[in-house]
Order: sequence, then C-alpha cells, then structure tokens
Amino acid sequence: MSRRLAAPLSDADATVQSMPDASPAKWHLAHTSWFFEAMALQRFAPDYACFDRDFAFLFNSYYETLGARHPRPRRGMLTRPTLEAILAYRDHVDRGVERLGDDIHQAVAALIELGCHHERQHQELLLTDILHLFAQNPLRPAYKQRALDGEPAETSQLTMRRFPGGVAEIGAGGDGFAFDCERPRHPVIVPPYTLADRLVTNGEWQAFIADGGYRRPLLWISEGWAKCRAEGWTAPLYWEQRDGAFWTMTLSGMTPVDPGAPASHVSYFEADAFARWAGRRLPTEAEWELAAAGLPVEGHFLESGRLCPAPAAAPPGDGGLRQMFGDLWQWTSSAFSPYPRFRPAAGAAGEYNGKFMCGQFVLRGGSCVSPKSHIRATYRNFFPPDARWQFSGVRLAQDVTEDDND
Amino acid sequence: MSRRLAAPLSDADATVQSMPDASPAKWHLAHTSWFFEAMALQRFAPDYACFDRDFAFLFNSYYETLGARHPRPRRGMLTRPTLEAILAYRDHVDRGVERLGDDIHQAVAALIELGCHHERQHQELLLTDILHLFAQNPLRPAYKQRALDGEPAETSQLTMRRFPGGVAEIGAGGDGFAFDCERPRHPVIVPPYTLADRLVTNGEWQAFIADGGYRRPLLWISEGWAKCRAEGWTAPLYWEQRDGAFWTMTLSGMTPVDPGAPASHVSYFEADAFARWAGRRLPTEAEWELAAAGLPVEGHFLESGRLCPAPAAAPPGDGGLRQMFGDLWQWTSSAFSPYPRFRPAAGAAGEYNGKFMCGQFVLRGGSCVSPKSHIRATYRNFFPPDARWQFSGVRLAQDVTEDDND
Amino acid sequence: MSRRLAAPLSDADATVQSMPDASPAKWHLAHTSWFFEAMALQRFAPDYACFDRDFAFLFNSYYETLGARHPRPRRGMLTRPTLEAILAYRDHVDRGVERLGDDIHQAVAALIELGCHHERQHQELLLTDILHLFAQNPLRPAYKQRALDGEPAETSQLTMRRFPGGVAEIGAGGDGFAFDCERPRHPVIVPPYTLADRLVTNGEWQAFIADGGYRRPLLWISEGWAKCRAEGWTAPLYWEQRDGAFWTMTLSGMTPVDPGAPASHVSYFEADAFARWAGRRLPTEAEWELAAAGLPVEGHFLESGRLCPAPAAAPPGDGGLRQMFGDLWQWTSSAFSPYPRFRPAAGAAGEYNGKFMCGQFVLRGGSCVSPKSHIRATYRNFFPPDARWQFSGVRLAQDVTEDDND
Amino acid sequence: MSRRLAAPLSDADATVQSMPDASPAKWHLAHTSWFFEAMALQRFAPDYACFDRDFAFLFNSYYETLGARHPRPRRGMLTRPTLEAILAYRDHVDRGVERLGDDIHQAVAALIELGCHHERQHQELLLTDILHLFAQNPLRPAYKQRALDGEPAETSQLTMRRFPGGVAEIGAGGDGFAFDCERPRHPVIVPPYTLADRLVTNGEWQAFIADGGYRRPLLWISEGWAKCRAEGWTAPLYWEQRDGAFWTMTLSGMTPVDPGAPASHVSYFEADAFARWAGRRLPTEAEWELAAAGLPVEGHFLESGRLCPAPAAAPPGDGGLRQMFGDLWQWTSSAFSPYPRFRPAAGAAGEYNGKFMCGQFVLRGGSCVSPKSHIRATYRNFFPPDARWQFSGVRLAQDVTEDDND
Repeated sequence: MSRRLAAPLSDADATVQSMPDASPAKWHLAHTSWFFEAMALQRFAPDYACFDRDFAFLFNSYYETLGARHPRPRRGMLTRPTLEAILAYRDHVDRGVERLGDDIHQAVAALIELGCHHERQHQELLLTDILHLFAQNPLRPAYKQRALDGEPAETSQLTMRRFPGGVAEIGAGGDGFAFDCERPRHPVIVPPYTLADRLVTNGEWQAFIADGGYRRPLLWISEGWAKCRAEGWTAPLYWEQRDGAFWTMTLSGMTPVDPGAPASHVSYFEADAFARWAGRRLPTEAEWELAAAGLPVEGHFLESGRLCPAPAAAPPGDGGLRQMFGDLWQWTSSAFSPYPRFRPAAGAAGEYNGKFMCGQFVLRGGSCVSPKSHIRATYRNFFPPDARWQFSGVRLAQDVTEDDND
Repeated sequence: MSRRLAAPLSDADATVQSMPDASPAKWHLAHTSWFFEAMALQRFAPDYACFDRDFAFLFNSYYETLGARHPRPRRGMLTRPTLEAILAYRDHVDRGVERLGDDIHQAVAALIELGCHHERQHQELLLTDILHLFAQNPLRPAYKQRALDGEPAETSQLTMRRFPGGVAEIGAGGDGFAFDCERPRHPVIVPPYTLADRLVTNGEWQAFIADGGYRRPLLWISEGWAKCRAEGWTAPLYWEQRDGAFWTMTLSGMTPVDPGAPASHVSYFEADAFARWAGRRLPTEAEWELAAAGLPVEGHFLESGRLCPAPAAAPPGDGGLRQMFGDLWQWTSSAFSPYPRFRPAAGAAGEYNGKFMCGQFVLRGGSCVSPKSHIRATYRNFFPPDARWQFSGVRLAQDVTEDDND
Repeated sequence: MSRRLAAPLSDADATVQSMPDASPAKWHLAHTSWFFEAMALQRFAPDYACFDRDFAFLFNSYYETLGARHPRPRRGMLTRPTLEAILAYRDHVDRGVERLGDDIHQAVAALIELGCHHERQHQELLLTDILHLFAQNPLRPAYKQRALDGEPAETSQLTMRRFPGGVAEIGAGGDGFAFDCERPRHPVIVPPYTLADRLVTNGEWQAFIADGGYRRPLLWISEGWAKCRAEGWTAPLYWEQRDGAFWTMTLSGMTPVDPGAPASHVSYFEADAFARWAGRRLPTEAEWELAAAGLPVEGHFLESGRLCPAPAAAPPGDGGLRQMFGDLWQWTSSAFSPYPRFRPAAGAAGEYNGKFMCGQFVLRGGSCVSPKSHIRATYRNFFPPDARWQFSGVRLAQDVTEDDND
Repeated sequence: MSRRLAAPLSDADATVQSMPDASPAKWHLAHTSWFFEAMALQRFAPDYACFDRDFAFLFNSYYETLGARHPRPRRGMLTRPTLEAILAYRDHVDRGVERLGDDIHQAVAALIELGCHHERQHQELLLTDILHLFAQNPLRPAYKQRALDGEPAETSQLTMRRFPGGVAEIGAGGDGFAFDCERPRHPVIVPPYTLADRLVTNGEWQAFIADGGYRRPLLWISEGWAKCRAEGWTAPLYWEQRDGAFWTMTLSGMTPVDPGAPASHVSYFEADAFARWAGRRLPTEAEWELAAAGLPVEGHFLESGRLCPAPAAAPPGDGGLRQMFGDLWQWTSSAFSPYPRFRPAAGAAGEYNGKFMCGQFVLRGGSCVSPKSHIRATYRNFFPPDARWQFSGVRLAQDVTEDDND
C-alpha cells in the first residue's frame, strides 16, 4: 500500500520537506521499513543482513534508545538515497520480515504487529504531508485527478443527540492490538451530554467567517487568539478567495469549497472558537468514545480513494450518529494525558506515545486518508492546538441543562 | 499589604521588566487598583472620579472586554507615571472603594471580593518577579536581608502515604469565595495511590543532577528534553556553582543551597523528569486535592516573612502529610482544563481563567510568598510546563500495585 | 555637563533600556567615568582607590582588552546601583582625575583627552536614547518643556552649489585631537559635484510620502526595501498621524511636524531612497568634507538647549552652504572604512573605532544634541544603514554633467 | 554548458534548496532561460510564443520591474515543473534566441550578451549551491568522482611583491562587455603596497586555528566575532575533524585537507581575522586590480573540470604573482560601492547590481567553478561578510613602511 501511495510522486516530490512538522514521502517510506529492521529484524533475525549501516542515522525518527539521528527539520536535505534506492530497501526489509515466518516468539510478533500499525500511521501522514507540499507550489499540482462529484448536495440538517453519561469504561481492554496510550481500560464519570449527529460543514464555517469569527477575540482562548493574529488566519488552511468565492487546495488540486462537505484543516484553536461562536463546545474524548462504542467502523477511509471528506449522508431513521469514523479527525477538548495507571510499553516502543503527553489535544475517529484497519473507537490521535495541516474537523457537543430535560 | 511589599523597592526596581512573562512591581500595584476601578467603581459608583483616563490603557492586563491596552512585553517602558504617582492612584481607588460602604448590591460585593483575591495573586507575583529581576543583576541584590538559620537540619525521612481513591468529589462547592475554574464541585474516580509526605529536597535534587538527570533524554518528555537542551538547563533556575558548591539566588540574595530545604524554581518538565528518575510520578490534581481535603491551611506563607521555603518539620506521629500548604507550589500531572459543566463568570471576570485553559499544568498548595488567605485546598494555580521563575517544587506520587497490598 | 543632562530624569528614567541598541542614562553616566578609571586612573594614578570592583564588569562596553562584561542587551536590568550611587561614583572619578594634576605624562594626557571626547559622544547618546525611551511610553513624556516657536517659517529655497573636485586632502592632520579613524590625512580624487545648500525639510519629506516613497520598491536598494516592508515604515521614526496631520515625538514631547525644519530620524535606507526619488544622490564623505573644510563650526548644538533641529536660515548672500554643522547628522554614501594606511591606536583605545569598520555608513556634521566642542569637519560618525533613532537627516548631492557646464 | 552541469543531478538533487541564500539547480536552469525570455524575447521577438505563462512568477529572481514572483526562501518547494520540463523550457528559449538571428538591433544584442554573462554567473552558483546541498547530507555524496592527485605538494613559499601605487585608473573602459558596476573607468590614488604572490594555504590556516585564531576576540572585527561565536565557527565551512585530522567536503565528496592547497570557503570576517593574525591586511580592490591589470586571465577555472582549488605552482622566475585568476575568489577590504559617476543600466537590467550596494564586500579573480570567459581584471563580485559557501579565499597585502624602503 505504501508503495502504491508513492506511485504518483516524482523523486523530487518524494524528497522535499515543506516544513519541520512534515516529512518527505521518501522519508516516511524508509522510516517505516527501518522501524521493522531496528525493532525486530536486527534483534530477532540472526541471519538478517543490514541493508545499509547509514540508514539508522538517516531514518530513526526520535528513538533515543536507538541511537543518534539526523535532525528532523533537515530531513528534506536527503536527495540521496534516491526514491529507487528506498524502494529497494523496502523490498529487502519486507523479505526479511517474510523470512521470519509465522512461527515466531510472541514478543517478535507483537513488534511486527506494532510495525504494521506504525506503517499505517505513516501512510496517512505521507498523504497529509504531500498535500502540504503541493499547496506551497504556486502551480497547485494534483496528487490524483478526481472526477468532480455531481451537484453539490444540500447541507444536511444537524441534530444534537442526547447521551445519558454516568459511570462507564473507556480505553482498550482485551487482547486486540492497541497502542499503549489507549490502555488501561478504566472507569470514568460523565455527566449527561449531547453530541452533534454530523460534522460541522463548510457552509457553517463560512457563516462563522462572515460573522467575524476570525476577528473577535472573545471567541478565542488567549493563546489561540495570539496565534490567529500572528499568523493572519482568516479561514481554514488551504482556503483561498478567488473572485469572491472560496476555493480550497486538495489532493486533487484546487476545487471550489463545497458548502455541504465537512470543514477541514482547522486547528484546535479554530475548532474551539467555532464551538463557542455556535453556543456549543467540543466534546471530551470520553464523551466521544462512549458515543462511538459499539458503532461499526464505517466511513470514508483511505481505501475509498476519495482523499477528501464527503458531505454527510441523510440522517438515518434511527436517530444515530453520522460521520463518526473516517472523513475527518475530530478535535476533542481533552489534553493528551496518560490514562490512570498508564504504563509505557517496554523498550524502544515505550517512546512511542508517552513522551508526547504535553501540550497536545486528542482527536478521534480517523479521516479520509486513514487506512480503515488503523482506526477503532478507542484510538487516540494527538496534535498541538495550532496544527492545521491534518485532516481535522469539528463535531459539536453540549452540556445537558435542566431546560433540556423535558 | 501591597504597599508594604513595595517599601524596599526604588523607583527603578519597581519599573524594570525582566522578561515578557514578568511584570514591573509598579505595574502590579497599578493594575490591581485599576481592576477595582474598572470592574466596580466606574460601573457602580456614580460619583467616582477617574484618577487618570490614560491609566486604563496602561494597566489593563488582558481584558478584551475592557478595551485596548499597552502590550505586555512593553510594560517595562513605563518610567512614568512614577512609583509615587502610582501610590497616589492606589490611595484614590482605595478611598473610592471605602466610600462604597457596606450597603452594596451583592454583585458589587462579589466584584470587590474578586478584586481582593486578584490583589493577593499579584502580591505573590510582585515578589516572584522582583526575585527574577534581581537575579539578572550581577550584583545579586537582596530584597530583604535575612538572619541565617542555625545549623542546616538533617534531611527528614520521606514516607509514601497510601490513599484509597474511589469515587469522591473535588472542586469548590458552597458559598465561600472560589474562582470560576474551581467550580463546579463534581465527582471523580481515582484508583488507590500513594503520596509523599513531604516535598522533594535540594539534597535529593543534587543526587538527581549527580546521576545525570539533566543529561539523560529518556528521563524527559520530548518537549521537555528539547527545552532542556535549548536553554542549557543543568540545575534549578537560580542555582549557581561557586567553588564546587551550589548557591542559589533568593529574595535575601545569594545563599548556599540548603540540602534539607525543598527544591524550588523547577519547571514541570524538570519535576516530571525527576519523578521518573525516582521511579515515581507526579500526582494528579484530584489525588492532591483528595489528600488535602480537611487539612488545615497551615504552612509557611507570605505572612511568615521568611520568603523562602523551609525544611520539613519532623514527621507527625499520626502519619499525616507535611508541607501540603505554603513553602512551594506543587506541580501536578493535570493539564489545566475546565471541570465538567464549567461556566465562566459573567462579564469581564469571565476572562479571568477560562481563556488560559490550554497548554498549562495545574499547581496546588500555595507558596512561601502566597498570602495565606489566598490559599485553599480547591485552589488551582496554573503555569506553562517550562515556567521556572515561580516558587514551584515537587511532591511525588505513585500507583498502588498488588505488591503494595500486603 | 553630563550631570546636568541627567537632572530631569528620575531613577527609573535613567535605568530602563528601550532596545538593545540604546543604553540607559545611568549606564552612560557610569560608563564614561569607568572609561577614565580603567584607561587612566588604574594604570597611571598609583594612589587611586577603586570605587567599586564590580563596576568594571557592569560598565565596560566592549573592550575585550579590559575584561569580561555585562551583556549589552541586559544593561536595563541594573536597577542597582542607583542613580545616586552612580553620581557618587562620578564624583569619585572626577576627583581622581583632578588629583592627577597638570604635570602628567603625555600618554596620560592623551588618554584623559580621549576620555573627554568619549564623554561628549555619550552626552549626545544619552539624549538620543532618552528620546527613544520616552517615545515608547504611551504618555509621550517630555524631557524638557519648550516654548513653541512663533509662526512656522516659509520653507527656504534650496540651491545646489557647485564644487570643482580634483585632487585634495581629507582627514585629520596636525596635532589637534582626532579619533584614530580620522587619520591619516591623505589625498583623494573627486570629480566635480554639486551639494545642496541646506538639509532636506519635513515638507519635502511629506511630498516624498505623498508620492508613494515608502511604497515604490524601485526607489530603494534591495536590503532597504526588505527592511521597509518588514518593519512597516511609512514615515520617519517618531512621526504619527493624528487627525490627518503629522506629529512627531521630540525631547519636548509630541509636536506638529514643522514643514520648514529638516527631516530627522531617517535611516540611510530612507535617505538613499529619498535622494533617488529627488533625482539626486547622497554625497560621499570626501565631497562633504571638502565642502566643509574651512567653514566655521557653527550651528545648533547641544549648548543651544533647543534639542531639536531648526529651519534653515535665509540663504547667505555669498552663495555659501547652510546647516553644515549641528542640527542633524548627514548621511553620506560612504561605507565606514579605514583610510589608507590607517593604524588603530595602541592598547585598549585601539578598539574604539577600527573594529566597527563593517556594514556601517559615515555621517558628518554633528547634530542639535552634539556638544559643539565635539564636532569638526573631519569627524566621522557611523551607524548601520537601518538606524533611525539618531538625529540623522539628508543633504543632497549630484554629479556635474556636461549640461551643468554652461 | 549549464545543461552539462546538470547531468550528474537527479530530479531531487536539482529541486532541493539547502538554505535561503542558495537556489535549487533546477531554479538556476530555469531562471537563466527566463532572463532571455523576459529581457529579450518577449520584448523584441514578435513571433515568440511564451512557453508557460506561470514561469515568470516562478523564475523571476528579484526584478521589481518585471512583476511579482515566488519568494526566494521558498524556491525549494517547486517539485514541479520537473527537471525534464525545465530542460524542455531551455530548448524552447534557446530556439527563440537562435531565431532572432544575427541581424538584430544593438540593444537586443546587448541584452543577449548580458544574458550570456548572467548565465555564466549562475553556472558557478549552481555548483556552489550543489556543494552546499550535498554537504547537508550525512552521506556526503560526490557530484563528480575525482582521481586523487599524487603526493600532496610541499607548500610553496610566499613572497610579498611590492607595487608603487600612485594615481592610476581602474574600472572597465572601452567597448568590451562589463557589468554596469565595473564602470566608469576612473582614477584612484593608491599609496605604495605589497601583495602576496599566492593565496593563503590550508596549512597556514591550520596554524591560525592552532594559535587560537577562532578563540581570540582581538583578532576579529566586532560583528565578525559576534557571528563567530553565535555560529560556533572553529574552521572554514566544510572542514570536519576525523580522528584528529581535518577533512573537507568537496564536489568530489569528503577528502583530507591538503595543506598546500589554498584555504577555501572562508567568510570576509575570517579572512580579515586571519590577515590581522598574520600581521598583514586584505588588499583594497584598487590594489588588487592595479596588480592584475595586464596579466593574462589564466588559472584553474570551471573548464578544467577540477572543481576545487589547486596548490600554487612554483614561483615564476620573474617575481610575478600566482593564482590571481581562478582557484578562489579573493576577499578585498573594499565595501561594494558605486564608482564615481556610476549610472545603473537602463530598464530592468539596472536592477542587476546597483541595488545591492550595501553591506557587501568585493571579491576579485574568479574561482575553480567560474567559467573562464566570465572573468576579467575589472570584474567585481560581491558577498556579505558572513558568506562562507562561496569558493572564497585570501590574498594578503600590506602597507609599505619606511623600513621597507631599503
């Protein structure tokens, strides 16, 4: 799959780094193979021959346990090895993993499974970062041409669904794969709340803009307002005004903003300001997870090939929620913190999540560029509150007051 | 009290701003009076004559509701008005408040009460900021000379006290004064845990340093390690090595580091790294508050005149906690977030806390420069994780495992 | 004189540093005394008792030869020693110098003379820096109240005076005092040129603004245009638009811009752009000096007490130049470079000028805040091309073409 | 030739920008063709069909006269158009120029000639920038493998040659091509001086390092010392210490530093400090040009294919100068300023040089990556004093004192 994602990219496309937070496609491709090599093959496959001793330095991301590494903001300097060489490296590592066979120790199997999930994360990031790179080019090239949808749909009505709260459990239990930060499963207390049955749309976001959303400091938290002014934000990332209409950059190039599609590429700061403007708030991650528990993981994922979020379907007859999975990551108001009695995984894998538990907010649900098998109701994604280049959107929530009780 | 705190300061001492996060003493003195003037007098005292129309611009801190203001990082440019003029302004406002009398509307009384608590916060900050300013001066002047204590005490033994956890309530209930962010009182679920019966000492911190605490990345969360390296941290703020021994800057000038006194002026990043090194963790704010509930608010506060944290007393016979209040603010692992169903106060006062709920961590317990009447068990102080100039220290916590059960 | 200049300043006024390029008044006062102490007294007055051993660290500016020093951008942190203590230090040093008597070695006498000239430089800088500090204060305080002039004068006509050029000598010769960078006197070759008989006025500068001077990149050199845009320049430093009219901050507070007075507080970049807009150019320092040679050093200096530049007098009958000395420093197009066969002075004094010969431009003539005895025709002042807080203005020049020959 | 220079480069090599001062190879290739298109074809070839309307925006460097353009620090974001497309663009423009034929107006011919010289400049920059890019890659790839020279030569003796000075002319006269900044030819007065008969060698530079050259502030001008410390300079750019010996990055990858070869990739600041350490100084550009006048333009240029500077040949019997052309650009102490009566070229070409006459120093002589036909004795190259990525070295000079007269 990763290899297929790289197919539309030139060597240059796969090499350039558009900002320190993004990585080159080539780097994503090499780093995920290095992860298998360093975590599993070099430790548990005695006959594995290292492809190139220099690659550990080049493609280690941040694992202090695994030695020195090339600085992150300089990843775009690596015009060599070429994309071709990286693909040969991937083949080499893949063969090494295959040779391990099925009869492997449980610890190795767990590392291979971790490596697969790790790779899926980077598949999403590869596309996210390519969109950012192509958006820097005045030619606004397309990663993949897309047939235009038919008529833009009417914006589907939004309904707030009520949830009873109470004492309930969240987090991953059982034996299935989950990252360490999703565990342990533990009880929480949640007051009754409501949750919007779909994501906020571009049309609603335009109303926010028109009502001075980006000019009224009282709608914003302090740090968000400072950022908004310093960066000159006036609309979601990738929106541009042309002849009075909003267009947006997508993986298919510039397209008119579809009022019925969900608003994407907004920071936590914007999401929070929008919610305040709407008289609502963002959900906590517990609220989101309790509402999502038991729902099938269905929606627009990477496999759909759509690569941009779709308008919500018509409300189901049963009063259920729409767009809970896929389309866009949904900001929650929860800081990314350890669950009670959290323990980082042993060894280098323990650096995977725990060391980022500071200054970030949790997002839930996956997006149109997430591989479907990567997503589950307990999955905790996290980004800093000013991050805008992710496929991130907004689902509104609200407290239940006495007025709601009738 | 505020006026008394300013007595040892020259006009210049009271004017200079040592960094954007700190404010000049003169500014603290004027801002707190402006708070009464803008929040209460100008709205509810029809015969109040404004002292100087320009002061609102100069001394508004961040209230968007109350108009434009001088930028925070430029507060140190205000050599005029003089300290003398500011003290006259304070008298004028004080008289205005007195003239309001006792027979005032409840809303006004609430604002006056808020103003008093606001002023206490700034009394602490005034001293905190003066220490930072004096530490920038190679002469290391003293704010207040202090008689040296006698012999440094032996470091008192540390015991981890066990708490049962369970479902319990935290936050401010009832009618007493509390900031909006302390409300509403609400239930939480807390697993059993242990808490150190005193703060971490300077002696323990020196062991952390000697063991490579500031050189081992695996002890630190990612952002903390980046900051540690970028700033070249090797010890708490204000520590200096002279002839092989550690000295530290205090409000009484440079003094040798007392191994038995609690380690102060450490960031969240350092506190968290220290706890990891010690095989422990920081407490959550719920854990701290549940342990503190019902304890008397006693300890070394501003009124003691000591102005630096004191070694812990001998352990009480009853196995209770020491140093829960006063001495040093205690970092918790809790991000500063709204309690469930939090509602900001109405009007400008609603900007007081809510708009800072991003990227900060909660500290509890007050310090040796906090007015005693300002502190209570539910009080939530908050600072960014890299803040070091506060009187901040560490109390360790730990999960209770099955091994602890015997 | 220095002491008299400090009289209108409070302790706070004398302490605050408004930007890294400026120094506190207190620092100027102490540094100039330290210069006598370190250069002369400590080396040549055996019975001189050092006032305070710490002062060398605090008040050394940049002399590597004379030991470590407090970093320049942190000079504003020195709330202690107080202004009073600094004045006592000055008395102490003055007495030390007096005790040296008249019968001193020529080398010592030369250092004392250097110290006096050094002090005059800092007298000018003290006022320049105070103006910058007071301009940061929204109250725009006045250093010295000034009676308003009568009617603003008509703008006096500007005439270009012709000079023959040829081979001629510039630079300081003879025995009189001059800084090392003014020597040696040496021949230059200068083609015929013309020079404006007065400085550019505020009225002319307003025409430049109105004609898009700050918006047309082709008028600017590349680095200047980058700076203009980055800093948002739209007028000389200290100009503000109020109700459609230009006002400017002066040492007497805010005053309306006088169209007949010379335009002040402009950078080299602006001066150069103005000249290009006017179809002229800036003079070289040789052109300026050859025109000034032999003229009496007369004009508005510090001693006039005016503290701001005055409109040009009516043109003299003899076709001579006006405003060559005093009023405003005049930017030349000459980079500050060593004269042929330049030798830095021996010892620490050799660091005085030579080490700044990079990236700076020469200004000539002195200003309304220069002590008159400090100025001579060979004097080379120098500042970076983006410096605006000096009392700096523009005199135009032009090549003589064949058309001019008739 | 440009095309041949690009042959060893992959699409990615040709796309990445290693720092804002450098440009991608692809950009150099496209920009130089755009220069012909915009300056000549679009204005004077009525039947010329523009290749792509978007390219003007992408490949205009800094010509305000010629419209808006992509920001310089973002040139590395242009992964599209591909290298292949750029080469097609070059063919298209080349054919356009050929179709102009020989019978063209003199103004057009002059622009074509300017375009050719412009292209030669960029040929050199292309290689200079590729070296910088490859040096960022931990693999240190080679642009072109090179057979190692035989034994490193003995360092050839250095002799100071004496020149009489006097009144003489410098600058370009006559009809041959020269940039506007080389004109007009004009007289200068130069005192007698001496000039080293070869460049400073790596061996001499190692002695400078060993003697504390990078640690002694008194050797440096003020701004240079600040830069040296801020950037942590300890040797020329591209030098690395491996097992106690110095290696350096070259266009042929890492090679041991050859003590007999000239020291390269040093800034003006380092050149000036070295000269002071050696008890000498840098030559002025007039001194250099007067010594070079009449010498044949011979040396190691781009055409030699060597791509790195060579050790000096044995001293010629006639006491002449060596290494005056080719090998390395030679820093002079002359700020890049207009010659007397300088007039920028008309039209967009007038932006070529004049607008950079601020804060830069003149270099003379060309380097091992300069096309030979690009260099002449009057040629003025210029770079800021902290630039190190150019092929820049040092020739020493000195005043003639009376002691030299015997």
